[in-house]
Amino acid sequence: MQIALAQLNYHIGNFELTIQKVKSAVLNAKKQGADLVVFAELGISGYPPRDFLEFDEFIQMSQDALNEIAECTKDIGVIIGSPTFNSNSKGKRLRNSAVFLYDNKIQSIHNKALLPTYDVFDEYRYFEPETQFEIVTFKGKKLAITVCEDIWNLDDQEMYVQSPMDQLIKSSPDLMINIAASPFDVGHHEDRLRILKENASKYKLPIVYVNHVGAQTELIFDGGSMVMDVKGKIVKQLNFFEEDLQVWDSEKDEAELNDKIPEAIERVRKAIVLGISDYFRKLGFKKAILGLSGGIDSALTATLAVEALGNENVIGVLMPSEFSSDHSIDDAELLAKNLGIEIHQLPIKDTFASFQKDLEPVFKDLPFGLAEENLQARIRGTLLMGISNKYGYILLNTSNKSEAAVGYGTLYGDMNGGLSVLGDLYKTEVFALSRYINKGKEVIPENTITKEPSAELRPDQKDSDSLPDYNLLDKILKLYIDQQKGKKDIISLGFDAIIVGKILKLVNLSEYKRKQTAPILRVSKKAFGMGRRMPIVARYLI
Amino acid sequence: MQIALAQLNYHIGNFELTIQKVKSAVLNAKKQGADLVVFAELGISGYPPRDFLEFDEFIQMSQDALNEIAECTKDIGVIIGSPTFNSNSKGKRLRNSAVFLYDNKIQSIHNKALLPTYDVFDEYRYFEPETQFEIVTFKGKKLAITVCEDIWNLDDQEMYVQSPMDQLIKSSPDLMINIAASPFDVGHHEDRLRILKENASKYKLPIVYVNHVGAQTELIFDGGSMVMDVKGKIVKQLNFFEEDLQVWDSEKDEAELNDKIPEAIERVRKAIVLGISDYFRKLGFKKAILGLSGGIDSALTATLAVEALGNENVIGVLMPSEFSSDHSIDDAELLAKNLGIEIHQLPIKDTFASFQKDLEPVFKDLPFGLAEENLQARIRGTLLMGISNKYGYILLNTSNKSEAAVGYGTLYGDMNGGLSVLGDLYKTEVFALSRYINKGKEVIPENTITKEPSAELRPDQKDSDSLPDYNLLDKILKLYIDQQKGKKDIISLGFDAIIVGKILKLVNLSEYKRKQTAPILRVSKKAFGMGRRMPIVARYLI
Repeated sequence: MQIALAQLNYHIGNFELTIQKVKSAVLNAKKQGADLVVFAELGISGYPPRDFLEFDEFIQMSQDALNEIAECTKDIGVIIGSPTFNSNSKGKRLRNSAVFLYDNKIQSIHNKALLPTYDVFDEYRYFEPETQFEIVTFKGKKLAITVCEDIWNLDDQEMYVQSPMDQLIKSSPDLMINIAASPFDVGHHEDRLRILKENASKYKLPIVYVNHVGAQTELIFDGGSMVMDVKGKIVKQLNFFEEDLQVWDSEKDEAELNDKIPEAIERVRKAIVLGISDYFRKLGFKKAILGLSGGIDSALTATLAVEALGNENVIGVLMPSEFSSDHSIDDAELLAKNLGIEIHQLPIKDTFASFQKDLEPVFKDLPFGLAEENLQARIRGTLLMGISNKYGYILLNTSNKSEAAVGYGTLYGDMNGGLSVLGDLYKTEVFALSRYINKGKEVIPENTITKEPSAELRPDQKDSDSLPDYNLLDKILKLYIDQQKGKKDIISLGFDAIIVGKILKLVNLSEYKRKQTAPILRVSKKAFGMGRRMPIVARYLI
Repeated sequence: MQIALAQLNYHIGNFELTIQKVKSAVLNAKKQGADLVVFAELGISGYPPRDFLEFDEFIQMSQDALNEIAECTKDIGVIIGSPTFNSNSKGKRLRNSAVFLYDNKIQSIHNKALLPTYDVFDEYRYFEPETQFEIVTFKGKKLAITVCEDIWNLDDQEMYVQSPMDQLIKSSPDLMINIAASPFDVGHHEDRLRILKENASKYKLPIVYVNHVGAQTELIFDGGSMVMDVKGKIVKQLNFFEEDLQVWDSEKDEAELNDKIPEAIERVRKAIVLGISDYFRKLGFKKAILGLSGGIDSALTATLAVEALGNENVIGVLMPSEFSSDHSIDDAELLAKNLGIEIHQLPIKDTFASFQKDLEPVFKDLPFGLAEENLQARIRGTLLMGISNKYGYILLNTSNKSEAAVGYGTLYGDMNGGLSVLGDLYKTEVFALSRYINKGKEVIPENTITKEPSAELRPDQKDSDSLPDYNLLDKILKLYIDQQKGKKDIISLGFDAIIVGKILKLVNLSEYKRKQTAPILRVSKKAFGMGRRMPIVARYLI
């Protein structure tokens, strides 16, 4: 059988576009002689549709889209994911289904059994898990159709009590088809390969795996759809980070392909670039604005934004204060020159003085402190939002994960922005990615990378005045945030108890700030945002 | 048997305080002759502990707390909720348990089967549902112990496929004990009474029901613990909105009590006041600051804050601009006088001019517009945050649900704040609560209530310039947000198609703003925040 893998970039709730894209892929597959086209999990709605699933109208529109797509399945099978109503009167009202269309109608519906409800996933919020499984026979082939997580329950610590493939295998299928919505993180591809190999080996069947590509706010999908044969060899590999369609002949032995995935740091770069461009494109915006401080975070953000949107669509704003060093301006100007972007220079001195005068009756003669530091950050945030509002640009947030973790940032100031580009990269990772980008040609000024980090909100300020060295800080943060190690565990690894206590307390006390930040492009297994949900008024480790 | 119902105000992760409170309640119950004390669901950790549950250390600390509490159970039984490790190697690693302590040790553990995972609830994110159920025999009585949702699966549309009480009833228990963490909404008490009555009637048993009281960031618990007899009569009723402990004699026939719950609008008032005071107390803050515009939202927020924190702890700031009307200042001053709070007046004219001068090189001669309106809101937000930072006050956000819905508010301006007090009240409900509070004595100036709402960000601006009348707007918003009606459904109810389309589009396009707002005190069944999760880059109804 000729099976086409259709890896598309969907747009949540944009049914018209989805119908058009899917139909065009079906036509394309048909031209290439395919008997069957496989699309991704919840392709019809886009993933994740979140609480739009609570609207009957949204489910009805998904149903209408399925019916419209069915019209082009006279002589070609289609498997695509969609929310469907649960036909059982008990349980949640919806199912997360793989729908098999052929001969202009829905032939069968295969519901997801294992519903990921952890990290960024909320599937049991909407869907009832399936407990009964049936294979499909199509053109003489017996297909075991599963949805994403259904084949991921293979580890030692099984997260689910049932296993759909253990049931399906009893009907002796000829191959496995898994439709997925597996978001990117820097190590996800290795996890995916391991799981697909374990399945191929356990069930002794080839697997057709089709994933999403593209970004939906914070979640980025890298694609990476593939066919793996019974021996665990990749025999078909779709492109990463772009749409693709390829046809696999199930009857033909194919040679093993080299794993085409780029190295880890290049994946992160491509993922962030896709994250930025899809955010703008799907919201209907073209231009980005950001503040350029001469520091590394804004330099890297600008560089990635230029890659995503083009240098004609990125506007940098320099907003020096009396505490800005000369090199800040020089470094920012050199960056802008290297990138070829438009810049504006708006000094904040006068408005800072004006605010201080306004506040005199309340501040009286209290000494200069955090309030005045934050004032400067908020003036900058307000200038940027002013331009954003005036011209319809989206403000890019330049905070990194280390800062977001310990609350080293000003709410309604430098934490402003529609999208956080680097919010899932620790400061040490920001350095690494900057150096990587600079390989071959200096884009980010060398001085920006080598100088000591400073917020420049008071005379001679350095980040290291109030924070431990980033190498140490990031190690502790990774243990606490990414690996959920407790205070005692971390200390037992040899870290100083006072520093660990201070950092963990800062993280927990900053929850109220993170509650109010922009969506963060997720590139690690544990990003701030929808994947990490913490109470604000808690006392734990404080 | 003498059963004490202990209704406590827990603080998430504050194990030391919890142990002390629980031990003191056990001692108190013992003095009153109780054989058994019943506490709430996840009392040990506080509710909801959210992702702290992913930390083994947190679970270990819960376990340690249980062991410490066990020490005072030599001659009295205790039932209390706690997270526990799942003893089964398959499935999620935790259980949401009712732990029965007696004779200085854990006697049995009863796990929750029905795990609410909708609206504000994420329980399947952490817990494995139980499928096997056993009663406890204690001092000759057979007790059917369930956890909250376990007894809520009685409606026509059952959300779960199993029913724990249907299993437990087979062992002929003498009474039902349900430990709960049921957050407040204005209609919740009626739902609770209905469910308890249906259970009493279906299983022909009395029910002991113990809930939390107190607020945990956005979630407010009203208490309302009670004993209902087999006939569905309330025979014991604990106080609402405060801690309480009462002992019920299971052998004695008791007369029916009047339902002590206050009327709906008074509940909302009490809930918000508790929400404010617990937010400050649990975070260790005393004083609140807010902007007073002379409008109804800030007036009502200030009034409720004074009730919660005392008038010595609320500071109002008037920040007039060239577009402010005289009555704005007068109304705000009269309000402050009525409340007896400190006020400051900080005109924004000079700083507004300074910002406009700063932006001239970029704005050039483009006409005054939304950017300039937002500038004023952001100057005010920055002044308020300046004072907040200088003195350690928490800024209260004064946005209402109608504004939050349609995005009628300035991000990083009037949307600033640590806590949104009115964010779950539509504008018409803000008016109703203000009028209710003014009954008897005018606290909120009459002119504030009767004048036409205006943001006063440009000459002669009225809310009705850009929004439909609030009566109409709120009706449509309730259908869409609270009842999840689709566009076609709403239009079919007789609303103008163009207005409905415009409003629903505004709601969906404002998702990016709501992503970045303060936590909102939840008083309805569908509040913005953790209970309503929407994608940002979606096209649905746009």
